[in-house]
Amino acid sequence: MDGQPQAAGLSKVEHTMLSPLLPDLTWLKGYSRVHFGHDVTAAVVVTIMLIPQSLAYALLAGLPAEMGLYASILPLVAYALFGSSRTLSVGPVAVIALMTATAVGNVSSQGTADYATAAVLLALLSGAILILLGILRFGFVTNFLSHPVVSGFITASGVLIALSQIRHLLGTSAQGATLPELSASLLSGIGEFHMPTFLVGSSVLLFLWVCRHFMTAGLVALGVPLSTAELSTKAAPVLAIMGTIVLVIVFNLESLGVALVGTVPQGLPAFTTPLFDLSLAKQLALPALLISLIGFVESVSVGRTLGAKRGQRINPDKELVALGAANVASALSAGFPVTGGFSRSVVNFEAGAVTQAASIMAAMGIALAALLLTPLLYFLPKATLAATIILAVTTLIDWKILVQAWRFSWADFLAVATTISLTLFLGVEIGVLSGVAVSIGMHLYKTSRPHFAVVGSVHGTGYFRSVQRHDVCTVPEIISIRVDESLYFANAAYLEEIVLAQIASNKAAKHIILMCSAVNDIDLSALEALEEINNALGDLGICLHLSEIKGPVMNNLNRSDFLDHLSGRVFDTQHEAFNSLRQEHMAR
Amino acid sequence: MDGQPQAAGLSKVEHTMLSPLLPDLTWLKGYSRVHFGHDVTAAVVVTIMLIPQSLAYALLAGLPAEMGLYASILPLVAYALFGSSRTLSVGPVAVIALMTATAVGNVSSQGTADYATAAVLLALLSGAILILLGILRFGFVTNFLSHPVVSGFITASGVLIALSQIRHLLGTSAQGATLPELSASLLSGIGEFHMPTFLVGSSVLLFLWVCRHFMTAGLVALGVPLSTAELSTKAAPVLAIMGTIVLVIVFNLESLGVALVGTVPQGLPAFTTPLFDLSLAKQLALPALLISLIGFVESVSVGRTLGAKRGQRINPDKELVALGAANVASALSAGFPVTGGFSRSVVNFEAGAVTQAASIMAAMGIALAALLLTPLLYFLPKATLAATIILAVTTLIDWKILVQAWRFSWADFLAVATTISLTLFLGVEIGVLSGVAVSIGMHLYKTSRPHFAVVGSVHGTGYFRSVQRHDVCTVPEIISIRVDESLYFANAAYLEEIVLAQIASNKAAKHIILMCSAVNDIDLSALEALEEINNALGDLGICLHLSEIKGPVMNNLNRSDFLDHLSGRVFDTQHEAFNSLRQEHMAR
Repeated sequence: MDGQPQAAGLSKVEHTMLSPLLPDLTWLKGYSRVHFGHDVTAAVVVTIMLIPQSLAYALLAGLPAEMGLYASILPLVAYALFGSSRTLSVGPVAVIALMTATAVGNVSSQGTADYATAAVLLALLSGAILILLGILRFGFVTNFLSHPVVSGFITASGVLIALSQIRHLLGTSAQGATLPELSASLLSGIGEFHMPTFLVGSSVLLFLWVCRHFMTAGLVALGVPLSTAELSTKAAPVLAIMGTIVLVIVFNLESLGVALVGTVPQGLPAFTTPLFDLSLAKQLALPALLISLIGFVESVSVGRTLGAKRGQRINPDKELVALGAANVASALSAGFPVTGGFSRSVVNFEAGAVTQAASIMAAMGIALAALLLTPLLYFLPKATLAATIILAVTTLIDWKILVQAWRFSWADFLAVATTISLTLFLGVEIGVLSGVAVSIGMHLYKTSRPHFAVVGSVHGTGYFRSVQRHDVCTVPEIISIRVDESLYFANAAYLEEIVLAQIASNKAAKHIILMCSAVNDIDLSALEALEEINNALGDLGICLHLSEIKGPVMNNLNRSDFLDHLSGRVFDTQHEAFNSLRQEHMAR
Repeated sequence: MDGQPQAAGLSKVEHTMLSPLLPDLTWLKGYSRVHFGHDVTAAVVVTIMLIPQSLAYALLAGLPAEMGLYASILPLVAYALFGSSRTLSVGPVAVIALMTATAVGNVSSQGTADYATAAVLLALLSGAILILLGILRFGFVTNFLSHPVVSGFITASGVLIALSQIRHLLGTSAQGATLPELSASLLSGIGEFHMPTFLVGSSVLLFLWVCRHFMTAGLVALGVPLSTAELSTKAAPVLAIMGTIVLVIVFNLESLGVALVGTVPQGLPAFTTPLFDLSLAKQLALPALLISLIGFVESVSVGRTLGAKRGQRINPDKELVALGAANVASALSAGFPVTGGFSRSVVNFEAGAVTQAASIMAAMGIALAALLLTPLLYFLPKATLAATIILAVTTLIDWKILVQAWRFSWADFLAVATTISLTLFLGVEIGVLSGVAVSIGMHLYKTSRPHFAVVGSVHGTGYFRSVQRHDVCTVPEIISIRVDESLYFANAAYLEEIVLAQIASNKAAKHIILMCSAVNDIDLSALEALEEINNALGDLGICLHLSEIKGPVMNNLNRSDFLDHLSGRVFDTQHEAFNSLRQEHMAR
């Protein structure tokens, strides 16, 4: 088949403008008791994992702990209704929480009511942007976020997140959104170092580290099946939370000055209409767009990976709408921006979830926790949450991308290096935007000076190869040039340079053949350049010919009058072009 | 040959970092009396043409008339020393004058000393930017200005220029930099309509229009040779100027209130150091960059066209430095931004100029005019200059580009339409920048959803063609996909979609062959996508193979460990891939 993949894979679904807006509940069909059993198990595991994660990422975003819980109830249900992945788990994630903290921190101070209001508005804006992109089928804009940019950004964010949490471990106060700010702030606050807090935090960190590296093997050695052992390991943060709550109560650590989460309102979030302040919305628009795009890229990448394992596919436009709905749901229930998380989705998948029913039940689990467990959370040390965050984000930090890009190409390396360094030193927004600009710039630069070869006929075959790499037949009167790139505005001028340089160094030339086998597109700028080349060669008495033009390119050329002015001819194959012109020349 | 055109065409010139900074005086070698004769003739013709043009474009830029003369003396000499074109004529041009008026108008009011100072600073900044781009060999950035953007911008500028001059014809006062502002201002000022001014202006307009359309034919009918007749026609504005000066003096039109150019300081410009105000420079930086790029694109395009007619080539990096030097020279002699103009260069070329000596002599001609003729310019009506501008810019306005782009491709049309409409309605800077953004966005969008084809073997040949367009041989176990585009971040996700869609609709598939004959590059994002595809197919028990990988792409792949993980093999040709896999499959 030719053209769009929809033509094959998705041909059964009729696509209308609003089709991504329809709930996708195909999984309900044939839902059985067996499915339910799998989904309930997954829901229990995910709920246990989500409680500490939600609280921690609320802390990371600079928000009250309950907002983390709120952001883990309705958004899960909203995604379950609209999403195309069966196993993606949506909620607060580390990178988005960091971006939220930065964006909201720029417009208000942490801990104020305004700050929480701004975070809710950010979720609403982000949701609206995602839904709009989905309806317009603009999912392709996320293609602009290249792999080097996303990887570099996540690594740099991991560093910033870890640094921002160290203060909770040390019991000091520190502020800042960039590496220099955070480091300076940590150093200047070192005098406030608080030993009891540090002991709690570092114990939790050590406990979690030991669990991660040895708990699975330990449980297996005790006869627990591998998969159960692996899932139990994911519950280690819950043990840490329970353990430190008990410690705080038993040893009255509050009186020693260990910072606690404090009063968390008991109950479910009130269904609220977010305050829409236009001037605030304008300030938050760019961060909301970046949060939407980064969140979407991460989420789709997780969804696609998990889907592929079971031969299921996800629909990017539906994903945009579903994530948008999740964010709007978060905003309406006093939450903050959410997206599909990697670790939570993997846990959901590995715990056996088969449909989104698992997520709906996990949401019910979190709702129960919000109703019943919040009094206990009063005693939870912030250092415990900080330790879980720090251990979680170490998996995000991956410097190998720098080495990999360095080995692969300088263009990719430049994109990674720019993204990492500017994210660390100037902040997340500048980091992402500069990375995107460098990626696009490098692509344009590379294609603006395409590889080309003067080719000759390989003796006894119809093949044409570079005169520099092969022993081929040429005649001085005919120059054949193969251009290995689509011709468009960025390389139109270069094409002229190439051809004119060939003419200047081959005074005997009477014919130029442009071999277009690797030319996938010709735009108007390139057409203009071809016309100028044709005119310039015409003034010198040289004919311009084209060979091996692809169908779509030929269609384009036929929509202009270029071929009417062309001094030479268009040949199906380079072989035919070279032989015809050579014979005609000899005949003279 | 392979690689860069320098390797062939420019191999004799040793390229060092600073080589574009060296004056290019190769034309002096072998300069003869015959050359001198040609150049003198051209210089006289160009001087006569330049005097009204310089004055008019100063008026258009909102500057005193003498600044137009100043900008036409030293800049010509500077370009003559450094430029690589033999016949390009540098000086004030309409579009750059309009951009100057807009840029300077944003930071100060017309007619004030500040305004002139800002224009001089703009020339200095523009010169510095051009020289820097030349030294860094960043001429390629002008490739980002696609043909639709440049054409659209020039057409829209032509409209704005004509509109901005109508007030001088009507004798009214009007202000504004966009179509709505200019129209509203013209309408509201209609009460100030001044009949004597209008009579002068409209007579000149009619006279120039008649000259343009009938003078050449008339002179030829009188026995004047065609080329002389054509050049004489270009002198019509001088006749208009002389005529109206006489009219003003004889009928004392000044007393009737016809606006005149007024006192023009007699003599040559003082060699001044431009005032460098950092905050002003920051405000002017972006306009200076755009003026530099637009000016460079126009100038190089003229230089290349004229050079091609005589088999001469121009060097873009030297052009950057030469135009930069011309702008710095303009700033040092109290001028405003300049570039290589189309009409003046064509006149120079057609009047027989063979070297830049013609430009140096034209500069001397303008200097003489500044010394001797300025007292007469007092009586020159502004309406005369406005009429010459209006008639000159009508040649810039070319709506055909809209039709041409519409027929050719919607992507090019969108770029033209955006550039024209935003330039008209929101101003020149937003217009150009949006046009560039749309061009780049459209290119990325097109390449983000590349054409691909499932291919099969054409019976009895080694060729593979689309299964949809040709009667070809396929087997259900082997799917061959040819992707007609370089694989990079913008289409990496799409590639995954394509392959997964094929798998979903061909359950019998055991082998996927990606035929890479049209893949000119693979970046790290695409490599990541290939790895994900390889893993996803691996989970489903399907092998991924590659065929017909080009040399440079293979080099890239070898710099990663992708080929070590590849579940299938790499084949030189698609023919070999298909046959080997089919035979192996049958053997089982």
